[in-house]
Amino acid sequence: MSSERIYLDHAAGGVLFPSVQREMLRYLVGVHASPGGGHREGREAREELERARERVASFLGAKDTEGLVFMSGGTEAIQSAIRGWGEAVQNGTIYLSEMEHPAVESAVRALGKKGFTWVRVPVDGEGRLQWGELRIEKEKGLVYVHLAHHDLGTVQNIADARKFAEKAGAKLFVDATHGAGWVSFEVEKSGADLVALSGHRLGGPKGSGALWIRSGTPWAPLLEGGRQEMDRRAGTENLPAIVGFGVAAEEWKKKGDDFRKDAARSQKELAEGILKKVPNTKLHGPELGLRRSPNHLAFSFAGLEAESLALVLDRVGLAVRGGSGCVTREMKIPPAMRAIGAKPEEARALILFTIGIGTESKLMADAADRVVEGVKRLQQALEA
Amino acid sequence: MSSERIYLDHAAGGVLFPSVQREMLRYLVGVHASPGGGHREGREAREELERARERVASFLGAKDTEGLVFMSGGTEAIQSAIRGWGEAVQNGTIYLSEMEHPAVESAVRALGKKGFTWVRVPVDGEGRLQWGELRIEKEKGLVYVHLAHHDLGTVQNIADARKFAEKAGAKLFVDATHGAGWVSFEVEKSGADLVALSGHRLGGPKGSGALWIRSGTPWAPLLEGGRQEMDRRAGTENLPAIVGFGVAAEEWKKKGDDFRKDAARSQKELAEGILKKVPNTKLHGPELGLRRSPNHLAFSFAGLEAESLALVLDRVGLAVRGGSGCVTREMKIPPAMRAIGAKPEEARALILFTIGIGTESKLMADAADRVVEGVKRLQQALEA
Repeated sequence: MSSERIYLDHAAGGVLFPSVQREMLRYLVGVHASPGGGHREGREAREELERARERVASFLGAKDTEGLVFMSGGTEAIQSAIRGWGEAVQNGTIYLSEMEHPAVESAVRALGKKGFTWVRVPVDGEGRLQWGELRIEKEKGLVYVHLAHHDLGTVQNIADARKFAEKAGAKLFVDATHGAGWVSFEVEKSGADLVALSGHRLGGPKGSGALWIRSGTPWAPLLEGGRQEMDRRAGTENLPAIVGFGVAAEEWKKKGDDFRKDAARSQKELAEGILKKVPNTKLHGPELGLRRSPNHLAFSFAGLEAESLALVLDRVGLAVRGGSGCVTREMKIPPAMRAIGAKPEEARALILFTIGIGTESKLMADAADRVVEGVKRLQQALEA
Repeated sequence: MSSERIYLDHAAGGVLFPSVQREMLRYLVGVHASPGGGHREGREAREELERARERVASFLGAKDTEGLVFMSGGTEAIQSAIRGWGEAVQNGTIYLSEMEHPAVESAVRALGKKGFTWVRVPVDGEGRLQWGELRIEKEKGLVYVHLAHHDLGTVQNIADARKFAEKAGAKLFVDATHGAGWVSFEVEKSGADLVALSGHRLGGPKGSGALWIRSGTPWAPLLEGGRQEMDRRAGTENLPAIVGFGVAAEEWKKKGDDFRKDAARSQKELAEGILKKVPNTKLHGPELGLRRSPNHLAFSFAGLEAESLALVLDRVGLAVRGGSGCVTREMKIPPAMRAIGAKPEEARALILFTIGIGTESKLMADAADRVVEGVKRLQQALEA
């Protein structure tokens, strides 16, 4: 094992593209006018804003550039999508699984207080959503589907979700805050009505995100006030972050295949290393391949508690996430692990390894060795 | 007149402190872990986050550092304060004037849909809120007061607002998104229950803002999901912006007196230059002094339409704001100008000059000359 640290918690916060860094540097010096100003500085800012919008829309494969609204991140985009649809339709049904991110659950519960209902989409042992025999409500509907699952890495079949949405006469919200870039997705082909993005998971800056809204979709803004973003998201535009997000989207558009291949190589080497060297470990969610996001591995280490193991792994220089990527206070066990029928001792032992731009596949054997070492140390500590 | 441009639209978007630039540069390279990670990178991020929180709380004079919640900007902080209070109390009355920012108005109207009522606080000819004879409702109340007015530069008497809030048994929300730093304010002395801040108006980065919540104040979060900010603002923390905001707050704490003096000098030179050299012009809001924010001037140029004049001023190298700093589509006339009894032709001719960190007072005579030139050119164009 080298002495260098290995960071594999990129889904929570990773590195910027060097090109994003360079572009953002420009914004730390000189005047930072707002795009709303009628002066030269404001017009220049507006051009930067609209260039970023075109870049992100193009990355999404969206013909309607104007449908893209910049927000402060993935959480705001998700909350704004669900609650904004609810505000516009006033009553209806949301279709979603029981293993969604707290940002999704809380938005749905907020609508529940207003009288909205929901129907739970069942999942199989890999975490794939099962749309086949789902009950259809007569009310207005919103079909929620994540592109990739934050804890399991499961890639969803968006075409299946779309077919169900059509049958149910419902709108389709594709939450791509996990999965975008890493998983093939084009908004026009997908038939999505709403698409949420997180900038930092694409090698862009924190504080950047977007919601794409198909023209004509019933929707109302979450943040009101100034007239920014065509009255769809009030507040002074965070132009440095937006510009950085645009550059990151451009990188993905140009070199996405390479990023995916690089990640898949790291993923394969790490997964094989762990499975070969560590006894009593299990990969949760789909096997490696098209059904699993190439930046994501979810392993349980039976008999060990995830947070303790993550702390020991940190000591041996490996930064990973112990437990779910995002849990609420009440959740002792990641809901996704319950949903796929994992055993409680597996659910409590879940470690997430997430790969980012620039993760080096040649370090993955080393990372696996650190897992071996960490597991050994924790077991020894427990036996002592 | 020099050939250099003069930028006086700082309230809409200005320059960063050099120290903020330097600190943010650190965040554009290397790993950007999230404070939530249990690993070394995450712990380091958490330390940065908490250092920034202490700095901003200290700038506010808040003993309760934990009361500070970082948000994506002033709009989110305002909306979150008002709607969050509404969500917690379920019904009540909001006390506010008729000349508030659209972010305020829209939050109040959103509560209005749920059955909340409001009482309008009258204003005098300078835009000072008149709390004296205001009707008190028996319901739970929220007193809204801005620290400085975005269009008039009027500094409000927070002690008067507090007295009224006490009499009415209402909570006090001080919106310091305009005014903070420029106007003396300490949260403990003020008796405020909620305080909103905008980072970029303090020489910090766009995308930064905060809401300070006094312990025990009824309030519920606007953005839900992950457990960031002690369950009060979900979403991956925008750490680069938060760190920058903290540094800006520190600058104000150390050198605020200098910044206020420098701004007041620029304000005085510009105001005197305009009043001396331009006929038919009028300063709106208070005279220069403690009742007016030192970074703010609001002039009308009778007979000229604000947006046209701003465009001509831009041509002669002076970037200013024509019309209100923030209007909604329906507003033909800035509501503040109506509220203070300005004539319609004055209201339509309002130009805002806002001073920022680093605005050089020695350029203000030049700026006034450009106003002379711009007014002359526009008048000639209209007469031709």
